[in-house]
Parts: sequence; structure tokens; C-alpha cells
Amino acid sequence: MKTLNIEKEIRKNKNKYVKTLKKFVQQPSISADGTGIEGMVKILTEEMNKIGISTRLLKSSTGGNPVILGTLNKNSGYNLLVYGHYDVHSVGDLNDWDYEPFSAEIIGNKIIGRGTADNKGNFLSWIKAVEILKDLGIDIPFNIIFFFEGEEEIGSPNLENIIRENEKYIPKLDAKIVFEPRQDSQGHPFINLGWKGMLSLKVIFKNKGGQIHASYGSIVSHPIFEMVKAINKIYDGNMILLPDFYNDIISVSGEEEKCIEKIGLCKKGIVKGLGGESIKQIDLSDKEIIKILLLEPSMTISAVSAGSVIPPVRSVVLGSASFLIEFRLVPNQNSKNIYQKLVKYLNELNLNCKVEVELLSNSEPTRTSVRDPFVEKIRKACNSTFNCECYVYPNLQGTSPDHLFKKLYQIPSLGCGCGFHHLCHRPNEYITVEQYMKGIELATKIILELSN
Amino acid sequence: MKTLNIEKEIRKNKNKYVKTLKKFVQQPSISADGTGIEGMVKILTEEMNKIGISTRLLKSSTGGNPVILGTLNKNSGYNLLVYGHYDVHSVGDLNDWDYEPFSAEIIGNKIIGRGTADNKGNFLSWIKAVEILKDLGIDIPFNIIFFFEGEEEIGSPNLENIIRENEKYIPKLDAKIVFEPRQDSQGHPFINLGWKGMLSLKVIFKNKGGQIHASYGSIVSHPIFEMVKAINKIYDGNMILLPDFYNDIISVSGEEEKCIEKIGLCKKGIVKGLGGESIKQIDLSDKEIIKILLLEPSMTISAVSAGSVIPPVRSVVLGSASFLIEFRLVPNQNSKNIYQKLVKYLNELNLNCKVEVELLSNSEPTRTSVRDPFVEKIRKACNSTFNCECYVYPNLQGTSPDHLFKKLYQIPSLGCGCGFHHLCHRPNEYITVEQYMKGIELATKIILELSN
Repeated sequence: MKTLNIEKEIRKNKNKYVKTLKKFVQQPSISADGTGIEGMVKILTEEMNKIGISTRLLKSSTGGNPVILGTLNKNSGYNLLVYGHYDVHSVGDLNDWDYEPFSAEIIGNKIIGRGTADNKGNFLSWIKAVEILKDLGIDIPFNIIFFFEGEEEIGSPNLENIIRENEKYIPKLDAKIVFEPRQDSQGHPFINLGWKGMLSLKVIFKNKGGQIHASYGSIVSHPIFEMVKAINKIYDGNMILLPDFYNDIISVSGEEEKCIEKIGLCKKGIVKGLGGESIKQIDLSDKEIIKILLLEPSMTISAVSAGSVIPPVRSVVLGSASFLIEFRLVPNQNSKNIYQKLVKYLNELNLNCKVEVELLSNSEPTRTSVRDPFVEKIRKACNSTFNCECYVYPNLQGTSPDHLFKKLYQIPSLGCGCGFHHLCHRPNEYITVEQYMKGIELATKIILELSN
Repeated sequence: MKTLNIEKEIRKNKNKYVKTLKKFVQQPSISADGTGIEGMVKILTEEMNKIGISTRLLKSSTGGNPVILGTLNKNSGYNLLVYGHYDVHSVGDLNDWDYEPFSAEIIGNKIIGRGTADNKGNFLSWIKAVEILKDLGIDIPFNIIFFFEGEEEIGSPNLENIIRENEKYIPKLDAKIVFEPRQDSQGHPFINLGWKGMLSLKVIFKNKGGQIHASYGSIVSHPIFEMVKAINKIYDGNMILLPDFYNDIISVSGEEEKCIEKIGLCKKGIVKGLGGESIKQIDLSDKEIIKILLLEPSMTISAVSAGSVIPPVRSVVLGSASFLIEFRLVPNQNSKNIYQKLVKYLNELNLNCKVEVELLSNSEPTRTSVRDPFVEKIRKACNSTFNCECYVYPNLQGTSPDHLFKKLYQIPSLGCGCGFHHLCHRPNEYITVEQYMKGIELATKIILELSN
């Protein structure tokens, strides 16, 4: 009865809610270059204050964009942290967009723009959930701590310091929800119980004498070739070749195995989600692909650079070459441990040039048990909202600064939310009006579920 | 007696000659971006006309910088072509220079600046040689065709067309000299009887779906990895792995072998010349290193690019990656043949992405017989100028558009000149006043030698 009412009540306010989302998308907030961050902090705190959420900006001595910490100020003894981020990913090449990324144009049932789903449509779902419960006169009997950060899209470089320097403002937590796009490419909702860790590095190869004329190419060492050799020694196309890289990985439990089996996402669905991208090991089964994607560590070289490939050609053996590499880690791998392994390994390759490794960022993998009662409550809210059995991903393929909160308190932590997960960071990112409404409904139902 | 006079006469005019070189260096002429080209054409033609060399600008329907064709207008039946270039290499990173590259500052006995040795000090040597012989009332009984091009440093993209479209202005040639820095890092002069050919390509790797989030890294194909795999299949660090790549190479004659043996340049000298650069196969003998450098084909990747290595890191599997590759070929390899082999080979690798190969430039290797009487005359002039036995390199490690002239007439062709060869294209390029004076003396003695 109550459930039905909530859905209806939300839909009555559809136009108002969409209007807020449009306003938030039209305010850029790109953490990569700082565009619009200040304006976004202003309108978001105003929106929160308007419905009775008190806010405080948490800053770090190391600089960066503040965290907006909101609280309902309930002295209930139960504190749920809701994590979101008000910054958005860079828009990338404007030519890849069919619409201006910050116009928030509505085409059919899609609200199109950078940040519509990741993460504005999601954090607004929670604000609207609090708003509707207030409008309906329904009391929230526990405390919600809203933790909206402003540097998620650049790897949260200051978050550890912000948390450490502001610990006194964060009450003892009981559970944590990351609200982000959690619908697969078929639209099916899922909950994730863990995140991969991250080790992001820059590796630089330098020769002694700097750049020399290419005609000497046959007798001198080439940093580019040494780099290529190193990459081939790190990764064979399937396996990461660092000694003992896979040693600390914990095995998957029977229950987690069952969750994986229930995930209905197939290779075809993933390929569709990735825009027709080819999957490497097409001979593997759907389940095996899902297992690799969610539960195994991965490695990507996200950039490689030496000289310029834009003519005119400079006929030289370059003095240096570099690449960016990131490892995504699973429990119980440790980023610092892997970092040390890589540095040692590169040294032992005895390359014909100097090798420098620069640590760009790192975070640790986390995973909450599928048996945790908190997980059960969220599943219930999710199933009821979407009228189906939501999938449970023991781990997400992505990362989150979840370990920073887990370092404070050993609490259950999971991700759920609305919108297509695979559209994050892509051109023509969008959320449908229906997905956004479902997001608000889910947040509301989670509050009601935790109120019992 | 005559020889002695020439040297003395040149030295009398030292200040005047240095002044001209300073003026020419202070006039930038960067073909890579066009800076100062027009001004350089103007002062060079003026300088030539002043001493009785008639000039004509040869242009191509495909555009580019003109060739300045000069002639003494002698109807002798013997036509020597002297090749030089009035354009200079880009200055590169200004931070690497201790002096402003176009200030032509004189520090001690060095004239420092881009183009001092490569090629302004060299083509001016010939103009000054004609000038001094004129001043001394010595007649030049044969015709010299000055061929000064303006796009040497960008691979002479229009030269083939310029030559083809202006054939009527180029008389039937008997011999050709390329006048460029030809002193090794010990200062010892050398003559080269051939040049390597060149095949310069851009290779692009593209996946189907474009850029995707790095969290999918474990299951999708990565253009960067496919590129790295391809590079490893093309080159193993010593040998080029293209099937039949080495097949067409002609073996070295006994006389060429003897020339190689006489070359006094050692690994240590090469390392010094390269600014301390490490030589790969340090276990090889001096002679073996020289042989590899001069007589074997080589391969360099002069640039590689995918994404940006400058933070903030973008966590993506990139949709494309590319590199620039250049092969330097020796007789009788053929650039078009190698190009076809590479395209075929890359296709056969069955990489997990699309591969495109773009031809940027190509030229063919050339070599003049060490037994040619013309070679003997130049050796004599060179030995007399430098008071030592100059080395004879059967082939240079570098390239030159020599094959375009050889296509017209099968004539002997060689390179000689003044200044350190290893300083070409490098920051703080310089020529010593003494080297420049020797350049003028060498040009004068070549004229006198060919006059007999």
C-alpha cells in the first residue's frame, strides 16, 4: 500500500524533479580543469539546505575541491552514509557529441548531457527522496550522512586527506551506499558489493644522450623499443606477468559464485553496451566473461607517448618515452605491494635505458559479504522498485574510494542506483526520465526499508 | 705552390667569409614551419648573382619551397652538380640551447647556431670558392650547376616533382657532389659514396567501438597492446623481422671492405659524437659497429602516440594508437617493395583491431663505385685540404634524395664537406671558423682538380 503510494507520489512531481536535474546538468562541474565547480557547490548546498539537510564543506590542507557533507541531524544511533559526487568527467572530443554536453536537452524520454546519470541524476535521487518523505510527512528515524565529493572523476587525489583532517565531523558509520548508475546495458538493475583497487603509474624510459639522429638507429638503444619490450614483459595479452601478481587473491565463495551465475548479462549485452567493441576471448562462456570482468584484476595502458606522430616527421631516435599504466586489483591484493613488485621487476629486466616509475594514485580493493543483513535490505528495496530480482555483483569492475571509509569503520558498503552503467564517461551520456524516477523511488524505498 | 697560395688567399678573407656566414645563419629558414624561407631565398640568390652565378627558381605544381638553381653558364661539355640546401632543421626545445639558435654567436673559434654546419657553412663554401677564384683571376673551365633545395630537412616532399617539371633547365650531368658536414667526431674528414634509402610510414591501430572505460580492460581488445605486439613482431631489438627484408641486399666488395677497415672511427668516438649515448651491442668490435652503421639497413620508431601522458589520467581503453616508423635501406632494397611487405605482414598478424598504413615518404638507396675516377679526384682534393688521408664510407648512415638525380643520369655521386657530421639537427649546432675555412679550401681544390 505504502509502496504503491510512493511511486505515484513521485510521478506527480515528475516535471519538478526533471527541472532540478536539468538545472544541475546545465551547471558544468568538470574536476579535470575546475570548470564550474564553485557554481555547482553553491547550487547543491542550497538544494540540500532547502529541504532541511545541514551542510558543511570539508576541505583538505592539500587543496582540491571540497566535499559537501550533509546530515539530517538525527540522534538515532544509526548512521547511513550516502556517497555521491558532484563533479563530472571531461566531455572529451566535442565532435563525438550529438548535443551540447551541458545543454541537458530532452530528446524523447532521454535527458542528455555530461553528468546526467554519473552522478547528478543519482545524488539528486536522494535529495528528492528526502524531499518527498518530508512533503508526505513521513519521518526518517535514523541519520543520513550525505558525502558528496568533487574529485571522483580525477581519482579522488585529496580524499584521504579530507577524511583524515575532518574525522570529527563524520559520525561513527553503520553502513554506506554509493549511489551511481547500476543498470546494465539491458536496463536490468544490479547491486555491487565491492570495488576493485587501483594502482595508477607513469613509467618513463630515458636514454643517456638524449635525442639523436635516426640514421644512428641501428647501433644505439631506443627508449621506445625498450618501452615496448617492457610492456610485453608485463602483459601477454591475457595474463599480467609480474611475478606473484595473482598470489594474494582470495577465492570466490559458493554464495558469490551463485550470484555470478544469476547475472543475466551476456557477452552480446556487454558488446552492445560497449558500442560494438570486440571482446577478446570470444570463445569463453558468458559466465566466464562476467567472472573475468568482475572478479579478476585487470591492466590497461591508458596512454603512451614519445614524440609527435603529426607530420612533419622528425627523423630521430627519441631520448625518452613514457606510458601510463593502471592495474585494477581485487581482494586481497595491495596496491603498494604491487607497486614495489613492478619497480623491482622493471629493474630486473636490465633494459638498455633508465627507467623511472612515478606513482600517480592508488587505492585498495574492498568487498562486503553477500550474507550481510544490510545487503538483504537493499536487495529488497531494489527488487520492489524495479519489479524484478536485481543482480548482485560480488565486485564491480570499477573502482571507488571505498577503502578510505572502510579504514575508518568496518561497515557493509555497496553500490546501487539508476541509469545505464556503461554510458559513464562516454559521449552522449544520458539518463531516461523513467530511470531517474526509479532512482528517486529506490532511494525512498531504501530509507523506508532501513526505517523498519 | 698553387695549393699553398689558395689556402693563404682564403685566410686573408677570413673575416669577410665569417661575416657572410653569420648573416646567413641570422636569417632563419625552417622548412618545417616555413619561417624565414622567403628571406633566405632572397639573400642567397643575391649572393650568387653578385659573383656571376645566374640563378633560376625551380618550383613544383605541388607547391613547397623552390630550388635555387645556379649556373656558371660554361659551355664546356662537363657539368658538375653541387647539391646543398638552404633550409634548416627545426631548433627543437629552446631549453636545450645555450645560445639563441639564430644569433650566430661566436664563442672562441665556434660559430654557434642552427644551420651553421648543416648546411649554410657548406653551400657558402662553394660560393666563396667561386668568389676567390674569380678574385684571383683563375678561370673555371667547366660548368657548375648549383642545386640548393629548400625542403631537405622535411624529407624533400616536392623534389621529385620539381626535378621532373624542370628537367629542361638541368643540363646533362657528369657528376654530383653533396656538400655537407663530413668530419667525424674526431674531426677526421670523410667522403661517402652512397646514401641509404628511406621508407617512412605512419601505422594506425583502431578498435571498433572507440574509447571505453578502463574497467572493461580485462575483456576487450586494446589498440595500444595490439600496437606493442606488432612492433615486437617487426623488430626484435637487432633484426628486422619482416619476411625477406634482407633478401635484396648486395654484398660488399673487397674494395669496400678495405675502405671500412681503414675508417679510424671507434665506438668510443661514436659514443662521444652521440653525446654519451649507449651503443647497444657494445661487445662488437669497432669495425663491426661501423659496418652495421654504414652498410646495414636500420629501423627506428620516431614517435608513438595514444592519449596523453600528462595528468589528469583518463581511465580509458583508447580507441586508437599510432606510431611513425622509418626504415633506412641499402642497395638494392626497394622502398615500395618493403612497403608492400610490411602491409602484407601486418595483415597476416591477425591483430585484434583494424590496422592502417599511411606512406609518408620514400626514397631509394644509392651507391657509387669506389673505383670511379671521379671519386679518386675528390679524394685527392680532400687529402690535400686536410693534410691526411680522408676516410671513404661506401655508404653513409643517412639519406639524401640522391636517387632522384641518378634516375635522370647514371652518374658518380658522393658527399664531402666541412663540419662535424654528428652535430646535425642537434641543439648548439656549430661550425668552427677553421672548419669553414677548410670547407672553402676543399671546394676550391675540387674545382682546381676537376679543371685538370
